[in-house]
Amino acid sequence: MAQKKLGKQTVMFQNPPSIMATSSIVGPKEGQGPLKDYFDIIIQDDLWGEESWEKCESKLQQEAVRLALSNAKIVESQVDYLFAGDLLNQIIASSFSARSLQIPFFGLYGACSTMTESISLGAMIIDGGYADKVACVASSHFSTAERQYRYPLELGNQRPLTAQWTVTGAGASILTSQGEGPYVTHVTTGKVIDPGIKDSNNMGAAMAPAAADVIVQHFKDTGFKPSDYDLIITGDLASIGKDIAEDLIKKEGYSISKVYSDCGVKIFDNEVQDTHAGGSGCGCSAVVFNGYIYKELLQNKLNKIMLISTGALLSPTSAQQGESIPGIAHAVTISNSIS
Amino acid sequence: MAQKKLGKQTVMFQNPPSIMATSSIVGPKEGQGPLKDYFDIIIQDDLWGEESWEKCESKLQQEAVRLALSNAKIVESQVDYLFAGDLLNQIIASSFSARSLQIPFFGLYGACSTMTESISLGAMIIDGGYADKVACVASSHFSTAERQYRYPLELGNQRPLTAQWTVTGAGASILTSQGEGPYVTHVTTGKVIDPGIKDSNNMGAAMAPAAADVIVQHFKDTGFKPSDYDLIITGDLASIGKDIAEDLIKKEGYSISKVYSDCGVKIFDNEVQDTHAGGSGCGCSAVVFNGYIYKELLQNKLNKIMLISTGALLSPTSAQQGESIPGIAHAVTISNSIS
Repeated sequence: MAQKKLGKQTVMFQNPPSIMATSSIVGPKEGQGPLKDYFDIIIQDDLWGEESWEKCESKLQQEAVRLALSNAKIVESQVDYLFAGDLLNQIIASSFSARSLQIPFFGLYGACSTMTESISLGAMIIDGGYADKVACVASSHFSTAERQYRYPLELGNQRPLTAQWTVTGAGASILTSQGEGPYVTHVTTGKVIDPGIKDSNNMGAAMAPAAADVIVQHFKDTGFKPSDYDLIITGDLASIGKDIAEDLIKKEGYSISKVYSDCGVKIFDNEVQDTHAGGSGCGCSAVVFNGYIYKELLQNKLNKIMLISTGALLSPTSAQQGESIPGIAHAVTISNSIS
Repeated sequence: MAQKKLGKQTVMFQNPPSIMATSSIVGPKEGQGPLKDYFDIIIQDDLWGEESWEKCESKLQQEAVRLALSNAKIVESQVDYLFAGDLLNQIIASSFSARSLQIPFFGLYGACSTMTESISLGAMIIDGGYADKVACVASSHFSTAERQYRYPLELGNQRPLTAQWTVTGAGASILTSQGEGPYVTHVTTGKVIDPGIKDSNNMGAAMAPAAADVIVQHFKDTGFKPSDYDLIITGDLASIGKDIAEDLIKKEGYSISKVYSDCGVKIFDNEVQDTHAGGSGCGCSAVVFNGYIYKELLQNKLNKIMLISTGALLSPTSAQQGESIPGIAHAVTISNSIS
């Protein structure tokens, strides 16, 4: 069998899966941000006709998959597997969406690393020959996350400046074995790394070491340099975590400054939108990738990028029991050419 | 590329991954049940030296992986990927275990279908050539599940006879590309199926249609008959769900009665242990498979089995919002010979 594993944590595809279509659906606040022109649908309120925020999030995810399939000009029954996850307890947004979609379903939980976790597994399953088409999707919703992880919204609790704003949105990618790109060429799978932070209003700092670790590991495994990329973009470290990750990567001998950004920094204009450190949530990297980055790849404004969705592995229970917040991050390389 | 997909939902492996070792760790109650002699470790109380039941569950999972690695005579650094999940909000049992193990980590949420979800993905990743060794693990804990899903244990709430007893335990399998079996030869991936049941004390009935659907699909995809198997065993339908599944499968023209059992029925002696319908939880099929079934395969008392872990996709929030309980089930065929 040909060598598919590179170094310790990276896979290089022999027949890189192609991303044949994507979709992005966002909430009203995201629809007023700097990336608004890239999103397929901007919903007008945070219920979208549903009775609860949780049901709205499930609808966001389900409609994101349907729209991506429509953009790909295929139907549900042509999709071999659905890889989906979200932040809600027992990933109910994904499960109830999967009930409607009726595609064989692998439920994932990677906190906000879910988008690249789903692309990593989906791409391996396609390149391995087990599927012709897979759908990868992740979602989050400001109001479901706030009341589950933090406080009732009605309380009007004040947020520290290190806090991030959970993105309301869902993004989906349809991967296929035969296609004309953009291609998923490499995946680097992360380990859980815990810097010992206990402040759940400072998640960027909690996740930054995991992001730095997987990015450095990717360079070591592949031999790529930062300058091989047009864009290296983390999921939702936001402004504080982004600076920490950049410093940690620099200490390992790689300067990524010229090409480095973060989805949580890109999605909101903090000067106007008062989102403090920036965006977060599974939906953050999901909509920034499937909306903004994918369209820039199609237009050749970007040609080779690395997306590193980042997750903070806490629950209200683990926090109450005095646990710190470990992070995880998974990296995928997406390129217009197979080099 | 050789044909790996059979029918709609099944994969047949070209180089079936071998299960080189397993482990099972259970709680005191499981350690008094009919399968007690098959388990590697029976803990003496439900904290196992930890400060909380949640930390105990994380330790169960971590120690199950360590023990399986030890049984396989390998160490953490030789394992390419960890596939793990549990029932806790944000799968904290798995995440904190993965922090300790330092193996590249894919977090899963499939409710009690997690054991076969993890084996399905792990086997595809190995047969696909992306890994040489993977660890697959799932856990549950009676006390963490009760207080998260139902009532404080201190309340001493009465349980209806349809209720099941969440297994305290963790089971792990180590899969490898080169080995002498037992082999994972086929996986059939389930869809979410919702019979409309809203009673969270009747999960067996909620999951039975999903189990029946994936078993029937497996027969259709592979051409196998029930008599090709020494044992067809569902995860945790328990006594009520088991009968429903058997009936549903019979209506589709397959009689599985002679070889059919359920992990939730096997693990407790309801006459003595007062567990009502039987066992449940991710740990149920995890310890029954990795304890009892694996050892029976090694001794050639069983030679070809199908394990179908079954999950009920509810959360307290979805129940409060009036949602029904959809089910999911994933089937894996494990055989001593590659036919």
